Amino acid sequence: MADFATIGQQFVQFYYNTFDVDRKNLAGLYRDNSMLTFESAAVAGTAGIIEKLVSLPFQKVEHRVDTLDAQPSSEAGGILVLVTGALKVDEEQKPMSYTQVFQLNPDGAGSYYIFNDIFKIIYSAA
Amino acid sequence: MADFATIGQQFVQFYYNTFDVDRKNLAGLYRDNSMLTFESAAVAGTAGIIEKLVSLPFQKVEHRVDTLDAQPSSEAGGILVLVTGALKVDEEQKPMSYTQVFQLNPDGAGSYYIFNDIFKIIYSAA
Repeated sequence: MADFATIGQQFVQFYYNTFDVDRKNLAGLYRDNSMLTFESAAVAGTAGIIEKLVSLPFQKVEHRVDTLDAQPSSEAGGILVLVTGALKVDEEQKPMSYTQVFQLNPDGAGSYYIFNDIFKIIYSAA
Repeated sequence: MADFATIGQQFVQFYYNTFDVDRKNLAGLYRDNSMLTFESAAVAGTAGIIEKLVSLPFQKVEHRVDTLDAQPSSEAGGILVLVTGALKVDEEQKPMSYTQVFQLNPDGAGSYYIFNDIFKIIYSAA
């Protein structure tokens, strides 16, 4: 079993690659007890989460991960991952900063699923 | 018992008020199994965490919380809190954007302690 930092990195790479190619394919990463808070709108369960992600008002999206930090989050083997980065949507040239936190829980079959997911766009501090 | 969103809000208000007045007084919020990753430097345990926070190269600091989102994070009653905000240090007039995530775990005595803490400054996306 890889360490939590490696798992966090592999997960993040897979997550954003999948998101940017076809975000409905993220369904395999969620479960019925998963939670997503996207720009402060809360949804739960795989179906609700994918419906929310697919309904976002853009066709193309490109995420860039700038930083990633991980910690063990539970005795059960959970992993907390905090990402900061930038994304561009559709033909917009100007990237937006974002932060996203995941708690990954073991799925009992040697892999992980997303239990917690909170996403926020970051606006300028000034 | 208050709900997770209310607990998250009360915690965040108390945390930054304490940080900005005298950050060594945050010791009561950590335990020996707590983890802090501050700008990607990882420390663990109350003593190590407070030593790190006290050693940060500023005297005055003022945090402003812009957004706060919380989710339940474990069956044991944990709470995940993602904060975005801005801070100013010493005589610097220009605020810096930051994001910080906490996992609060029940302490068995009716309150909570910080189990996970990851802090990152956000630089401009451009």
